[in-house]
Amino acid sequence: MNRERRRVGVLGATGAVGQRFVQLLDNHPWFEVTALAASTRSSGRPFGQACHWVLDTPMPEWARDLDVLPASPDADLDCQLLFSALPGDLAKDVEEAFAQAGYAVCSNASAHRMDEDVPLIIPEVNADHLQLITTQRQKRNWPGLIITAANCSTTHLALALKPLHDAFGLTQVNVVTMQAISGAGYPGVPSLDILGNVIPFISGEEEKLEAETRKLLGPLEEGKVRQANLVISAQCNRVPVLDGHMECVSAKFFRPAPMDEIKRALAGFQALQELDLPSAPPYPIIVTEAPDRPQPRLDRDVAKGMTTVVGRIRPCPLLDVRLVLLGHNTLRGAAGGAILNAELLVAQGWVD
Amino acid sequence: MNRERRRVGVLGATGAVGQRFVQLLDNHPWFEVTALAASTRSSGRPFGQACHWVLDTPMPEWARDLDVLPASPDADLDCQLLFSALPGDLAKDVEEAFAQAGYAVCSNASAHRMDEDVPLIIPEVNADHLQLITTQRQKRNWPGLIITAANCSTTHLALALKPLHDAFGLTQVNVVTMQAISGAGYPGVPSLDILGNVIPFISGEEEKLEAETRKLLGPLEEGKVRQANLVISAQCNRVPVLDGHMECVSAKFFRPAPMDEIKRALAGFQALQELDLPSAPPYPIIVTEAPDRPQPRLDRDVAKGMTTVVGRIRPCPLLDVRLVLLGHNTLRGAAGGAILNAELLVAQGWVD
Amino acid sequence: MNRERRRVGVLGATGAVGQRFVQLLDNHPWFEVTALAASTRSSGRPFGQACHWVLDTPMPEWARDLDVLPASPDADLDCQLLFSALPGDLAKDVEEAFAQAGYAVCSNASAHRMDEDVPLIIPEVNADHLQLITTQRQKRNWPGLIITAANCSTTHLALALKPLHDAFGLTQVNVVTMQAISGAGYPGVPSLDILGNVIPFISGEEEKLEAETRKLLGPLEEGKVRQANLVISAQCNRVPVLDGHMECVSAKFFRPAPMDEIKRALAGFQALQELDLPSAPPYPIIVTEAPDRPQPRLDRDVAKGMTTVVGRIRPCPLLDVRLVLLGHNTLRGAAGGAILNAELLVAQGWVD
Amino acid sequence: MNRERRRVGVLGATGAVGQRFVQLLDNHPWFEVTALAASTRSSGRPFGQACHWVLDTPMPEWARDLDVLPASPDADLDCQLLFSALPGDLAKDVEEAFAQAGYAVCSNASAHRMDEDVPLIIPEVNADHLQLITTQRQKRNWPGLIITAANCSTTHLALALKPLHDAFGLTQVNVVTMQAISGAGYPGVPSLDILGNVIPFISGEEEKLEAETRKLLGPLEEGKVRQANLVISAQCNRVPVLDGHMECVSAKFFRPAPMDEIKRALAGFQALQELDLPSAPPYPIIVTEAPDRPQPRLDRDVAKGMTTVVGRIRPCPLLDVRLVLLGHNTLRGAAGGAILNAELLVAQGWVD
Repeated sequence: MNRERRRVGVLGATGAVGQRFVQLLDNHPWFEVTALAASTRSSGRPFGQACHWVLDTPMPEWARDLDVLPASPDADLDCQLLFSALPGDLAKDVEEAFAQAGYAVCSNASAHRMDEDVPLIIPEVNADHLQLITTQRQKRNWPGLIITAANCSTTHLALALKPLHDAFGLTQVNVVTMQAISGAGYPGVPSLDILGNVIPFISGEEEKLEAETRKLLGPLEEGKVRQANLVISAQCNRVPVLDGHMECVSAKFFRPAPMDEIKRALAGFQALQELDLPSAPPYPIIVTEAPDRPQPRLDRDVAKGMTTVVGRIRPCPLLDVRLVLLGHNTLRGAAGGAILNAELLVAQGWVD
Repeated sequence: MNRERRRVGVLGATGAVGQRFVQLLDNHPWFEVTALAASTRSSGRPFGQACHWVLDTPMPEWARDLDVLPASPDADLDCQLLFSALPGDLAKDVEEAFAQAGYAVCSNASAHRMDEDVPLIIPEVNADHLQLITTQRQKRNWPGLIITAANCSTTHLALALKPLHDAFGLTQVNVVTMQAISGAGYPGVPSLDILGNVIPFISGEEEKLEAETRKLLGPLEEGKVRQANLVISAQCNRVPVLDGHMECVSAKFFRPAPMDEIKRALAGFQALQELDLPSAPPYPIIVTEAPDRPQPRLDRDVAKGMTTVVGRIRPCPLLDVRLVLLGHNTLRGAAGGAILNAELLVAQGWVD
Repeated sequence: MNRERRRVGVLGATGAVGQRFVQLLDNHPWFEVTALAASTRSSGRPFGQACHWVLDTPMPEWARDLDVLPASPDADLDCQLLFSALPGDLAKDVEEAFAQAGYAVCSNASAHRMDEDVPLIIPEVNADHLQLITTQRQKRNWPGLIITAANCSTTHLALALKPLHDAFGLTQVNVVTMQAISGAGYPGVPSLDILGNVIPFISGEEEKLEAETRKLLGPLEEGKVRQANLVISAQCNRVPVLDGHMECVSAKFFRPAPMDEIKRALAGFQALQELDLPSAPPYPIIVTEAPDRPQPRLDRDVAKGMTTVVGRIRPCPLLDVRLVLLGHNTLRGAAGGAILNAELLVAQGWVD
Repeated sequence: MNRERRRVGVLGATGAVGQRFVQLLDNHPWFEVTALAASTRSSGRPFGQACHWVLDTPMPEWARDLDVLPASPDADLDCQLLFSALPGDLAKDVEEAFAQAGYAVCSNASAHRMDEDVPLIIPEVNADHLQLITTQRQKRNWPGLIITAANCSTTHLALALKPLHDAFGLTQVNVVTMQAISGAGYPGVPSLDILGNVIPFISGEEEKLEAETRKLLGPLEEGKVRQANLVISAQCNRVPVLDGHMECVSAKFFRPAPMDEIKRALAGFQALQELDLPSAPPYPIIVTEAPDRPQPRLDRDVAKGMTTVVGRIRPCPLLDVRLVLLGHNTLRGAAGGAILNAELLVAQGWVD
């Protein structure tokens, strides 16, 4: 790795996830933010003025004075790698335009996740899917590229399922989520809707959870990803929690899966540790034996929010195993996940 | 029904559920509260002083001046029928002592729910189980009796499952709950534990939900209840909601169950309406078609909190159907359920 | 009062306060809602479709099918009296246009509250200010009229101060508010801003509280209201409470004010009871002696939310007396207050 | 300062504030925890088992295995300096017994705060009050000593008032607090009481706020502290916030106090910086110009929670200035404050 930091930019920098990118890229050892871009409503002003900062650490000094640029290749952003926190409806065209213009786009948006030639990546789960970039370049003839990070609740589910799938062969998964409000961005969920309440519906979330997990866990065969042969049922709820998605999971396997082997597979799971990616936690999964954990407020920040915490692992009378998992939805589940993807991209030489 | 109101008492009257009994029995057409009993710590003082009232309607005037008596048959409570809101560890012996002394005990406690000769009753689900009283009297030689209401989350699950079981034959059920803090009584859950948080564990709750549901849905055969032949997996969570338990349910049936027939079976479900029980709602189940309902704060008080609201009924890729249900945990799910049981007991002539 | 109900309409019917009007006018003995109007974005559709209902009682059946009309006199609303829940920026011109067109407008908006010729009314506080209508008609030459209800936090402060001002002569008031999220309308306060948090700023609120209170408590002299000679300092905070504004008040008087006389003045306060206004509570102020009351969740619904609850009355080492008051901000503090104003208008013969 | 860390212990280590001591003393440069003591109910077990850890960072490894000792001098705690997080009713006798036995007790309990010969200390406010130890030793004949930290809400009020008092001479202060639930310890406030609610009463808090502030700001004269000549009125509320006390303050001065000079006095305030106390923030007070700050969730952790954040500084129509202040109640306002006191004690040579 050379010593000089790469110049990177953030698309959609003023939104809630955009702010997480800015926060996490502060003092990043490999990346230096040189461009912040947003919709034309925000652009043209210093970031410190254009952005209603909602995080609980102060806005980094260097960001305060950066002028917000329009999120368009015409703006000639001074960087090579772009993080996209664009809203779903804008992301498709804008990200393609940037890839076309030669930028490597590491997206957190859902627009391209399920495209056949776009890698949907969680480094510890399916780093080999980066090979799709070759297909993407052939097919789209882009000098740049697009890779995507998974949906927040998918990320932590897929991370927890990966070692189990490898060890025992998943066949069925039931998942019920309890998701934090920060997952809806800012202004996001009105307080009148969620204070002292639960909303049993998050638009599009169940479909993403079911489809993305199958793509993430699917094998790469002849340059294509074959969806994992796995039945998933998801029910998604919004709860009055600031950060941290909880998921109650039941799973059935092809092979016998004793509880102690399940715990060992989860707690011992490691991947790509040899790459020393700066944002990678030492162990992607932490197993807790406490009877009442994980809990969002107590466990979401473990390993800087890049880890999935799994607890209450016990037999399921219906499928094979039940467990509860928790992960930070805007760290590993959004900005942190996309940054880890970018680190993988760099480490494996996909951007020069 | 004679015009005079029956004299009833409340055991454990100063607790959160005990207060609900007092609130719901205010102006009850069949019952008049003549005795409030509690632990010796509270007894000997007027209820208005002994009780830290936590409900959001004022304490009824008549209750304010009633002296709290000790919860023991020695106290010679001036009533025939008793509602028990005693804590689990006390309930077993105290309820038995009162039944032994000739009182009809309608309990909300868990102590006797799974006893072979004690009816566990939800009137619309299994009124016929009251026949167990005959066995109970023979076996225990009590002049009084004990019947029990189900656990709060069980009550609403069993209500919603009943018409489906009758119509299609349940074989498998997965349920993940999001339960309100009032379910834990007062003081109950410390605010430091639950504010902005989710706790994925409620002691004993999953076991109750699994076992009680099978008893409630089981047939009465030769004076005994045979547990329903049904696999249930429950995962229970506490959420920062005041009242109202949500449950995300998936179910599999023996017979084909088209979505529209499922909806019809739920929405059209009625039972015992001919008895005109004062606390019975016109329809025990209300079906909502709104994409984001039921919600605790908006739907828990439908039909005075005696109804189960079911929404998001849709096919399940894993089992057959998925749905979300909501019910008030301290009304139908506790005090209201026990009062409805008492009304059934009276209407069917088990107390004279 | 004739038996036939007057035809009334609601401007801004789809918003949070507009919904409260619809809810409170359901089965109103004097008024029948015949017109619901809103911005052009909502108009043209049945209310049931155009309105995202956020209240916890179901939308009245009759409202569901009423077509939403545009909030303009051109729409020829079939009613004589209008309730305005329009947002501040629209209210000024639209309300004037309706008054010009002959409608009697009972507004909850702030636009005209401080106009010299527009009555700012709390019936029990300053019913005599309705005389300003005479001036208004002379000056503006309107066949209709505009009267206004006070700001939510002002309403409860002025109600509590009125009997004290009458009895002892207020000279100084300090007030710190803790206001519910429903005061900001819908979508209003983002949950990310307020969950587990306090925001020490509500735009324009402190100015309203200070200025409106002086107008409400001021005498009517020669057809004009002279502002009460009273120094007020207000600091306003938003807290994560659904409904109910709390206010910590200190006050200084011109005359000696013993604690027991203060309590008597508050608890005994009555006004206009002879008019039998349907929405008027028997006592506008309720005094509680409990050491830890009032509390929003427990006390906001006292007397259907039309009452101010005052507690913790005790000497102030700085001024003369300290107290805590609570009132429902969208009932008495908004829609309920405006409806009570309309009842007064009708009872005193200002509309025929 | 010598390089070896001093051995310290924590009394009441298993409670909420005790846990904060353990958390903050982890890796402390001057102190090493060698003894954890608690009530006999907890003692005799390793801290990891005896303590229900409620903080959102993991329990330090070294603490997990320390055996909890009884909080009595008989237990022969292996340390010289003790931090007391004992509950009020126990603190008085136990702390005295330890001082008698030769320990230097830095207490967070209220028991001794107002004793004439016990220093009530906030280092930046009244370090000179440590001189009271001389009187204390003479009077009580203790080989050890007791010093106390102020109440949580007092600490931040006194910090913010100190530079204003020095510059302009305070004469009157009105303060209304909105206090976090963690201030009540664990289990503390039941969630049923506070979820979506405000409680306008905290037992003893207003008295502490009024009395302690006068002692803290009072001059040391002839070995005694003379209470500051200052009228204070306090009204205290509990709000559903996890950590961080807000206070709306108005103040009157003896001398003219222009707003810009007030801001300068606050923002520029420094004291004892030459001592390089490890827990002292570079500036004890931070002034924010944002219109809607400070806010508990966003500002409580500034400078590791050791700072008071002051905002909304503006003229008061009643007194002279109004402002809103925020401080972390269990960091600077409790354990952090007591540790800073201990650092001062060491730096000024009161323990050898």
